[in-house]
Amino acid sequence: MRELQRIAIASEQFHDQQVDLTAGQQHYLGRVLRLQPGDRFIILDGRGGWWLAIWKGGQNATVVEPIRINNELPIPVTLWVSMPKGSGFEEIVRCTTELGVSRLVPIMSARTVVVPSPQKLARWRRIATEAAEQSERQILPEITDPLSIQQAWETLSDQGEEVDKYICVARGDFPHLLNCLLAARTGQGKGYVYNSLLLAIGPEGGWTTPEVEEAINRRFQPVSLGSRILRSVTAPMVALSLVAAVSEMDNY
Amino acid sequence: MRELQRIAIASEQFHDQQVDLTAGQQHYLGRVLRLQPGDRFIILDGRGGWWLAIWKGGQNATVVEPIRINNELPIPVTLWVSMPKGSGFEEIVRCTTELGVSRLVPIMSARTVVVPSPQKLARWRRIATEAAEQSERQILPEITDPLSIQQAWETLSDQGEEVDKYICVARGDFPHLLNCLLAARTGQGKGYVYNSLLLAIGPEGGWTTPEVEEAINRRFQPVSLGSRILRSVTAPMVALSLVAAVSEMDNY
Repeated sequence: MRELQRIAIASEQFHDQQVDLTAGQQHYLGRVLRLQPGDRFIILDGRGGWWLAIWKGGQNATVVEPIRINNELPIPVTLWVSMPKGSGFEEIVRCTTELGVSRLVPIMSARTVVVPSPQKLARWRRIATEAAEQSERQILPEITDPLSIQQAWETLSDQGEEVDKYICVARGDFPHLLNCLLAARTGQGKGYVYNSLLLAIGPEGGWTTPEVEEAINRRFQPVSLGSRILRSVTAPMVALSLVAAVSEMDNY
Repeated sequence: MRELQRIAIASEQFHDQQVDLTAGQQHYLGRVLRLQPGDRFIILDGRGGWWLAIWKGGQNATVVEPIRINNELPIPVTLWVSMPKGSGFEEIVRCTTELGVSRLVPIMSARTVVVPSPQKLARWRRIATEAAEQSERQILPEITDPLSIQQAWETLSDQGEEVDKYICVARGDFPHLLNCLLAARTGQGKGYVYNSLLLAIGPEGGWTTPEVEEAINRRFQPVSLGSRILRSVTAPMVALSLVAAVSEMDNY
């Protein structure tokens, strides 16, 4: 089903299960994609809906049924990311959205004092929207207002123990995130022991020792992302790559 | 050991196990890092060598012994990457170097016709050098001259079956790369059944069907990187994140 060609259709082109194709769309289906009348294709309605359609030839297509797709990760994943200087956070928003993040919390920690402007926040949310569309997600990730690390700790109190919490620490003898994620898999249903995942990723200079200690007190598992030192832009992508892969792998 | 502070020293500062520190380095050790005479620190000799040293105070430091560190992945990893348009390849060079790639081969495939200038190639190599230093690698990844996909196939002939080869395919019902990598682990020695790894990652529009078929004929395993559609800049980072994590995880 997902191999079918997809085209985006404006809502005014729909009526009574029929679609009026524009001249450009007819050309695209017939000449570019080489579809024949009777062939199936997918219509994107621009509101997250996908529809299976049959081309009748010319401007006519019939909508057969809605397609239920789900590219979302099985459990919501929240990222706390200490904001790097410059435009690094834009890259983080783009890549982690592609990789399935549910909520991104920009964090001001002891070693980051970047206070983003409202314009910057608006820009990050625009980038998240674009990236969600491009990567064919159903859910738009939330980018919260920035929080100080103290404020962030306080948001934890009401989440109970259903959240699997990790803090990524660059230097130290901690287990690899991949080990922890594989150990938390059940191989059934939503695939995880937990109901949601929270990953905290530090700034360029790393979390301070008191920050790591506070996290451990709050039942975060300190983890490693490997033995090379990653930029603060790369670390969130690596962490999300592992989370997404472990959620989507076949049973092992 | 890795928690010790590191400073880079020029080779002419070394003589007979002694190091003459510059005024700037003395300031850095004493005032910035707050080291006391007798404290240990690490010297980087700029040629991949690390040395344990003791500060004697003032301009004098003594070299104690070489430090054998190894942040390299246990087996060499080659990436074939179809070159995206724009500056995307720079991001790929930077991130995959951080993640431990050994050799990057810029590929011209059916759906990419970008021919990089010699200046661009020189720039990519500079970025790889910077990223290798920053991420504390011992080996500088090689960035080869660009190859057409046909030329790339021909480089395979003399590599025998010791190479574990994957082609990442965006749409299709293939096993997840993570499953394949975990299955190829031995949990002993270098950790892998194979002597080296080769990953081929396609362009924005994906590999063509003939390209995927050719790869399968040449014993590449087609794999998925998950159900969301990744940009061609993101896909290599995700693939390398998984390769690095599986190599560096504890036994599972």
